[in-house]
Amino acid sequence: MAKFTVKRAERIHWGDCDPAGIIYYPRYFEIFDRCTTAMLEQALGMNKREFLIAFDFSGYPCVETGARFLLPTTFGDDVIVESTIVELGRSSFKIRHHLSKGGALAVEGSETRVWVRRQNTDSKSIKAHPIPDEVVARLGGR
Amino acid sequence: MAKFTVKRAERIHWGDCDPAGIIYYPRYFEIFDRCTTAMLEQALGMNKREFLIAFDFSGYPCVETGARFLLPTTFGDDVIVESTIVELGRSSFKIRHHLSKGGALAVEGSETRVWVRRQNTDSKSIKAHPIPDEVVARLGGR
Amino acid sequence: MAKFTVKRAERIHWGDCDPAGIIYYPRYFEIFDRCTTAMLEQALGMNKREFLIAFDFSGYPCVETGARFLLPTTFGDDVIVESTIVELGRSSFKIRHHLSKGGALAVEGSETRVWVRRQNTDSKSIKAHPIPDEVVARLGGR
Amino acid sequence: MAKFTVKRAERIHWGDCDPAGIIYYPRYFEIFDRCTTAMLEQALGMNKREFLIAFDFSGYPCVETGARFLLPTTFGDDVIVESTIVELGRSSFKIRHHLSKGGALAVEGSETRVWVRRQNTDSKSIKAHPIPDEVVARLGGR
Repeated sequence: MAKFTVKRAERIHWGDCDPAGIIYYPRYFEIFDRCTTAMLEQALGMNKREFLIAFDFSGYPCVETGARFLLPTTFGDDVIVESTIVELGRSSFKIRHHLSKGGALAVEGSETRVWVRRQNTDSKSIKAHPIPDEVVARLGGR
Repeated sequence: MAKFTVKRAERIHWGDCDPAGIIYYPRYFEIFDRCTTAMLEQALGMNKREFLIAFDFSGYPCVETGARFLLPTTFGDDVIVESTIVELGRSSFKIRHHLSKGGALAVEGSETRVWVRRQNTDSKSIKAHPIPDEVVARLGGR
Repeated sequence: MAKFTVKRAERIHWGDCDPAGIIYYPRYFEIFDRCTTAMLEQALGMNKREFLIAFDFSGYPCVETGARFLLPTTFGDDVIVESTIVELGRSSFKIRHHLSKGGALAVEGSETRVWVRRQNTDSKSIKAHPIPDEVVARLGGR
Repeated sequence: MAKFTVKRAERIHWGDCDPAGIIYYPRYFEIFDRCTTAMLEQALGMNKREFLIAFDFSGYPCVETGARFLLPTTFGDDVIVESTIVELGRSSFKIRHHLSKGGALAVEGSETRVWVRRQNTDSKSIKAHPIPDEVVARLGGR
């Protein structure tokens, strides 16, 4: 099983927080999306715009996600997200995110993503496509 | 078991969508949050600002959430969210959201919320508090 | 001079507000963008996805915007935005938004938009294009 | 006239962009808000949560803002924002933001902010308050 892991620092901003003074929880899913992209960027050595072209695919939409919120975070907090690939299938993969604050786990999230390609040049519809071998290798293999 | 249900119409907007042309999935959690609030507003007959004061509490933070994305939605789509209270505990409750488009289920989400109050007037820390009987009754009872 | 006007109701939500308890002001620009789109949808009798296809263009990016914030709004507020086309040029147009709350002007905004088309089928670059006569007519003419 | 300036790097993310493939322009106002906060944090040597307490005030709401969008940015772009205080009044200040990409100016923005305090301990209403001398000094003086 692949265990590719990246760590990413994120700052919680004033505009991420709600009238209760803590982060508005949908923002965590934006953070997790950035972390998954950062993971692929690090593995592949290019930014997202570049790797979508290099590997000729349309993206890696999320088909399932979930999170548990254990401790609140607020503006000014510097958090660390540790993102790990916990499953690497033929055309899908699963990521686990551990967001911590001062060493304490604050949020635990997971996402299942599918590697997709347009069905044909003219079409707007997409379908699952096998993750290229090179990408699998760079993510630590199956 | 409580089965209080509300339906809410939402329009997906251009600014909710990403370069793939479909909704950026963290926006669904904003939609679900609005639906949970709309449910309480309808049950209690006041808006959120009013019912926080009327029932003297600080909010109903989300402690766990998850979603499965079955069909994409895009800008211009008018969707319907059916939100149902599936568990109503002493100080927590669970909501299930079914978001459909043209009659087809597009997203299935769930949230667990906790009824909270400030620990004391000066404090900023909050703690779980029993859901008032009147609220329980208006949500269809346990 | 064109004076096409539409009114649109918007609710300010919990997630639009910041720790000061009032709307986080970048959200007003999302509201104004929705209002400009609603104006075109009403004038053209189709939603945005449909009219981009019907008039074969790429969009109407904002090249300049500004706003003055006169009164705060907060979650639970139902506001009215009155949007008026104040200039209608060959390939650009200017909209003025008046957002009011309980009859009092809360925000005054303006946007300059350009009608754009892809330079050619293969290209991703866009350029200004004359606003079609039919659109000009439906917006009240010059 | 004060000329306090800070530079801040920002990455444009996938989730900041719209179906046209470029940044959704309201996101620039979130970026500018972060830059203004970063400027105060750098000048005062604390984060926002800390300096709101240290200087006993409620915030610096924006009363007027505007921007011109000269070049598009997209996901993967690393931009630099140079933020300068161009006016420093008794209880208000004006910031100019220059956002550039690869050395070219992409967005020019400005904001007018007011230093505010709660009217009294019990009240939720705020009013303009003179910017403390120490803050004025740290921002380069008038």
